[in-house]
Amino acid sequence: TMAITMSNNQQSSSSNYWTSLNQEIDAHLKQAIPLRPPLSVYEPMHHLTFSAPRTPAPALCIAACELVGGHRDQALPAASALRLMHAAAFTHEQLPALKDRPRPGRPPNYTHKFEPNIELLTGDGLVPFGMELLASSDDPAQEMLDRILRVIVEITRAMGSQGFVEGQYKESQYGGIDGEEAVQVAWIGEVCKKKEGELHACAGACGAILGGGSDEEVEKLRRYGLYVGTIRGIDIISGGVESKDEKLLLLEEVNKLRNLAVEELRGFDQGKVEKISSIIDNECCNV
Amino acid sequence: TMAITMSNNQQSSSSNYWTSLNQEIDAHLKQAIPLRPPLSVYEPMHHLTFSAPRTPAPALCIAACELVGGHRDQALPAASALRLMHAAAFTHEQLPALKDRPRPGRPPNYTHKFEPNIELLTGDGLVPFGMELLASSDDPAQEMLDRILRVIVEITRAMGSQGFVEGQYKESQYGGIDGEEAVQVAWIGEVCKKKEGELHACAGACGAILGGGSDEEVEKLRRYGLYVGTIRGIDIISGGVESKDEKLLLLEEVNKLRNLAVEELRGFDQGKVEKISSIIDNECCNV
Repeated sequence: TMAITMSNNQQSSSSNYWTSLNQEIDAHLKQAIPLRPPLSVYEPMHHLTFSAPRTPAPALCIAACELVGGHRDQALPAASALRLMHAAAFTHEQLPALKDRPRPGRPPNYTHKFEPNIELLTGDGLVPFGMELLASSDDPAQEMLDRILRVIVEITRAMGSQGFVEGQYKESQYGGIDGEEAVQVAWIGEVCKKKEGELHACAGACGAILGGGSDEEVEKLRRYGLYVGTIRGIDIISGGVESKDEKLLLLEEVNKLRNLAVEELRGFDQGKVEKISSIIDNECCNV
Repeated sequence: TMAITMSNNQQSSSSNYWTSLNQEIDAHLKQAIPLRPPLSVYEPMHHLTFSAPRTPAPALCIAACELVGGHRDQALPAASALRLMHAAAFTHEQLPALKDRPRPGRPPNYTHKFEPNIELLTGDGLVPFGMELLASSDDPAQEMLDRILRVIVEITRAMGSQGFVEGQYKESQYGGIDGEEAVQVAWIGEVCKKKEGELHACAGACGAILGGGSDEEVEKLRRYGLYVGTIRGIDIISGGVESKDEKLLLLEEVNKLRNLAVEELRGFDQGKVEKISSIIDNECCNV
């Protein structure tokens, strides 16, 4: 493994941090998607939200909010929305139209609980549901109105045709490329940047916006998220890569991205940076 | 036909009204979705937006805005967003998971230009794109912030798991019901209310919100849209209904809804009501 040197205490305290963030997001979502009638609608929403692989992006959103001095609650609805958007995108990736195409790496080990028509429609329902959660989250004083609208624009861009969906499109065009390892690795990097990269970039930026960060802080945390997310994406794919040369090239790429990510955290309160910087080892990287 | 008595002049002036609204929405969308690189992304977005059957909901949104004294431009981004959402929903309905199931009425005569993976992803891209168009439409003075957020909540609810998607779900559960005609008609009414009904209810409410209507006006135009949209839905399905008895029952239902719709327009400026009330004959109803 590539784990950097950390004392056991440091590792356990930062691991607790991510665990607690994810627990809060889980609790928020469980309350938002109750198992109530009509079960034909709520059960698939509930199941597909919680059975999709958990992305670190929502927790990153909250961590970015806290880093710039905001309160956790300010970022919770956006974090939940990101989790729902990601679950919807993942659900649609498991439909025959996309799943039955060659993909790099190992396909996720996914058991379908519902028929394709239900999975298609539930994915279609999760996206507006996430947006609603976010758009209706404003406090009565309407102090956050402009921040929430900015965050809606950020999330729609990150998830749309020039973000996550574009990454899925590129991935669906994969024809089992035979070319050189370097070409293959560059291609994997591009897909990961568009999918997990832009998702986490958005999460970092949204957290900073909601926490009241400056424009400079928003852009730093956007880039931090981009590097972290791309590492996460490579991490997911690399488990299925067979070639040792290719694995080595991916490892080099991850090291490069890790250094770039750390650079972006300069200038922030160093006492707080430790938490958010630990995401790479705790949540993203098993390469 | 059921056309109510109108002079030729009245018919032509109200028909011009809907034509001009639809042209403005077309122009707004063509500018928003340019045919530019990457064509692999923009061409399907463009094609699927303009090849989907045109719903009257976006024009209704603008008409409602004008009825309560607002300016057309205030409702244009929401109208375009509704058009994009509807196009996305229609596109997903043509995917094998939903299309290859029995449906009441005649299936739309749809020619696929792209493979299912592209149609799935383009539908997924159109939804956030529509939301982005709306969320980023605020004027620099930010005067419309709260109205736009309210409208985002309205649209996400109407399109989501308890609105349009629920209607699609009910439709996908249709097993070619053999029962009595009255049961079949009730079932059609329920699907139409959830799909076209809630879409147009949302359009009416959103137009009124954006135009600065009172809460009472918003609710009247929401109900007006619900009746108008349900008529539209029945109109789409009834073309494929064979049984004469069933057709007659549907016609009765449409007449009932038409009367309910007209009731909701009482209390508005009667000079302006003529335009919005003409939607039933111009845009919705060929029964």
